[in-house]
Amino acid sequence: MGVPLPSYPECAATVYDYASRLFLGAKRTESVALGDAPGRVLARPVRADRDMPAFPRSTRDGYALRASEASAWLSIAGSIRAGDPAAAPLASGSAWEIMTGAAVPEEADAVAMLEHVETAQTGMDGTRVRLTAGRKLEPGENVVPTAAEARAGDELIPAGTRLGAAQIAAAATCGYAAVELFARPRVAILTTGDELVPVDVKPGPGQIRNSNGPMLAALVTRAGGESWLLPAVRDERASMELALRSALDADLLLISGGVSAGKFDLVEPALAELGAVFHFTGVRMQPGKPLVFGDLPVAGGRLPFFGHPGNPISTAATFLLFAAPVLRALIGLQAMAPQFTVARLARDVHGKPNLTRFIPARETCGALPGEMPSVSPVPWQGSGDLAAFARANCFLVVPEGVDHLAAGETATILPI
Amino acid sequence: MGVPLPSYPECAATVYDYASRLFLGAKRTESVALGDAPGRVLARPVRADRDMPAFPRSTRDGYALRASEASAWLSIAGSIRAGDPAAAPLASGSAWEIMTGAAVPEEADAVAMLEHVETAQTGMDGTRVRLTAGRKLEPGENVVPTAAEARAGDELIPAGTRLGAAQIAAAATCGYAAVELFARPRVAILTTGDELVPVDVKPGPGQIRNSNGPMLAALVTRAGGESWLLPAVRDERASMELALRSALDADLLLISGGVSAGKFDLVEPALAELGAVFHFTGVRMQPGKPLVFGDLPVAGGRLPFFGHPGNPISTAATFLLFAAPVLRALIGLQAMAPQFTVARLARDVHGKPNLTRFIPARETCGALPGEMPSVSPVPWQGSGDLAAFARANCFLVVPEGVDHLAAGETATILPI
Repeated sequence: MGVPLPSYPECAATVYDYASRLFLGAKRTESVALGDAPGRVLARPVRADRDMPAFPRSTRDGYALRASEASAWLSIAGSIRAGDPAAAPLASGSAWEIMTGAAVPEEADAVAMLEHVETAQTGMDGTRVRLTAGRKLEPGENVVPTAAEARAGDELIPAGTRLGAAQIAAAATCGYAAVELFARPRVAILTTGDELVPVDVKPGPGQIRNSNGPMLAALVTRAGGESWLLPAVRDERASMELALRSALDADLLLISGGVSAGKFDLVEPALAELGAVFHFTGVRMQPGKPLVFGDLPVAGGRLPFFGHPGNPISTAATFLLFAAPVLRALIGLQAMAPQFTVARLARDVHGKPNLTRFIPARETCGALPGEMPSVSPVPWQGSGDLAAFARANCFLVVPEGVDHLAAGETATILPI
Repeated sequence: MGVPLPSYPECAATVYDYASRLFLGAKRTESVALGDAPGRVLARPVRADRDMPAFPRSTRDGYALRASEASAWLSIAGSIRAGDPAAAPLASGSAWEIMTGAAVPEEADAVAMLEHVETAQTGMDGTRVRLTAGRKLEPGENVVPTAAEARAGDELIPAGTRLGAAQIAAAATCGYAAVELFARPRVAILTTGDELVPVDVKPGPGQIRNSNGPMLAALVTRAGGESWLLPAVRDERASMELALRSALDADLLLISGGVSAGKFDLVEPALAELGAVFHFTGVRMQPGKPLVFGDLPVAGGRLPFFGHPGNPISTAATFLLFAAPVLRALIGLQAMAPQFTVARLARDVHGKPNLTRFIPARETCGALPGEMPSVSPVPWQGSGDLAAFARANCFLVVPEGVDHLAAGETATILPI
């Protein structure tokens, strides 16, 4: 049997090391309108273009005043709305009516909330205001001082961050109508197998439709790559080599099928012919054991590739565990490793000797805070069972050496 | 003070009840090419177009044979590759060489793995094969019988499911070059405030750039809606009413700003003028307390709306907790509630009396199975602090009545 296969954690470490080196490499960048940037990865940091806030900001509707004078009757100097320029400096014995978000005038050091003051009419001087008896107000209350959040020039979002809604808001407030992003890497997808027909063709006897192509395209797009779906290749040496050569200007190459032990498996010899270095050619995991990882010499460097097993569940698992981290490194994303999370097991599951298991499963999130998500394996007939896979939204992980996980235990899951 | 505000769970229940009724309502659907369908919601179930598998499928490279004859020397009838039509029925005393994914011939009831057989050359009859001494093979081993996964016509993916990579693979295998999806609901986004200038304008004294508009657009798109970003509206009654009227043919209306207690807050009166029914006008939560939820009479029904607080962190929290479930119901998604999950607290956090807290926080997922994600609140200066929010990727939930959560405890989080 030769050398035993490496374990899943060993192969994960090999891939993360490789991805970490890719992460440091030079990458194309492009300027993208802020509205098209959500979900993509920042290549140049977003910095504060002015102090944040740029003026002392009231966090309440109420009265801007000196805290030391708040309990005395104060005359009302006027009203400051959000968007108004700062009012004249506050004179002693007076207060400015102020709205949330408005600029607190100089000399005022606090804002008394509308709900915490009382007003009175006086014949000569109009309305007066004071803090309701018994209330206290400290200097600084309900005011965010200039630059308390950030100073002009401070880095708010480092390069390598995926832009979620929070980061979009921060970039907008700093005036970034466009942001500099890493370009989407181009991921070539090459499915192989004489049994495959396209999705719009009725399969003949012994044939099946190509499901790995559309599935990998969806996975690549979701992970932030640009999917480049090549025509399926027949199990024939010359076609395979031709197809591989046509994919050499991709940033990452995903091949599915043709990597197991059968005599028609041609992917590895065809890759070897092109000068491939193989980092591993099998993993102690199920499904996904025949996974191949390596790279090819190409103009200007090396092209990383994965040879995924032919069946879709194996391909999805090995993509998420291994190819996605390499893709995220090419995208420039700091957080490149698979985003494992946890859920409470609804049923017992069993491990297998000398293998890490990744079982198709369904996670159900809690609809209210305090409920841990629940996860249940979907009953399946093996890694070709797409009817079962259609009910799955995650893989449930049973590490090597774990014989049994009991219902109620917290288990690791990997969302699909 | 009048009637106390309802709690977060009470308001969540109000919104989920409302969303559940919307979910049952009629919705536009559209046919979409499978390649454009990932992430969207299925309107018509995906069904198996033929038995799955359509033929007894070998799950291994090896020899198709009768299990009862496997230990005897068998002649080799020929070779069946994946994609070949089914071979002639198996004659007694013989075996077919077979590849993974190929059709097992009639009369064969098992596949002996390549690694588990031995072969011998005989002068007259060519190669013979038998199970290695000591190995056993049961009928059915390494064969998936016809229709074991699903029968032709079976529903594989119910309507109301978001199509992830697994569902795309299942739809492809069943010949769905296009799928019938719910149309994206149109979500009008109306930001209000005299202090707002567009992202490409330099703010004057007392002004800030509009960050809620781009942020809400990103949140809406991420949740599956089509965002319709209207020009920002000044704090002036006539403009407000005009802007609201222009948004009445949306499927959902999001308004930000102008819903707190100040005298320039005009949103609620303008909505009332248009015949709004208010389901709640405040929530015992922080941030987000001034949130308003209601609906407006429009041609053909009622238009749900949310009046979000003006600051971005409050707006993001109330969108994710309340508006997103309504949006998901309009999208036809069964799983409409916020997808709460859990993480291990890295630092102590405190609750506040009579409020559910949603604290901007950063979740870090485990890079290897077995590590629970960790979450840490980001230090912030209140709900206008976008510099802090830029470091957040989730909200950390401290339920009402909880005084304190200690580092190391498992806490509920809501990804942004």
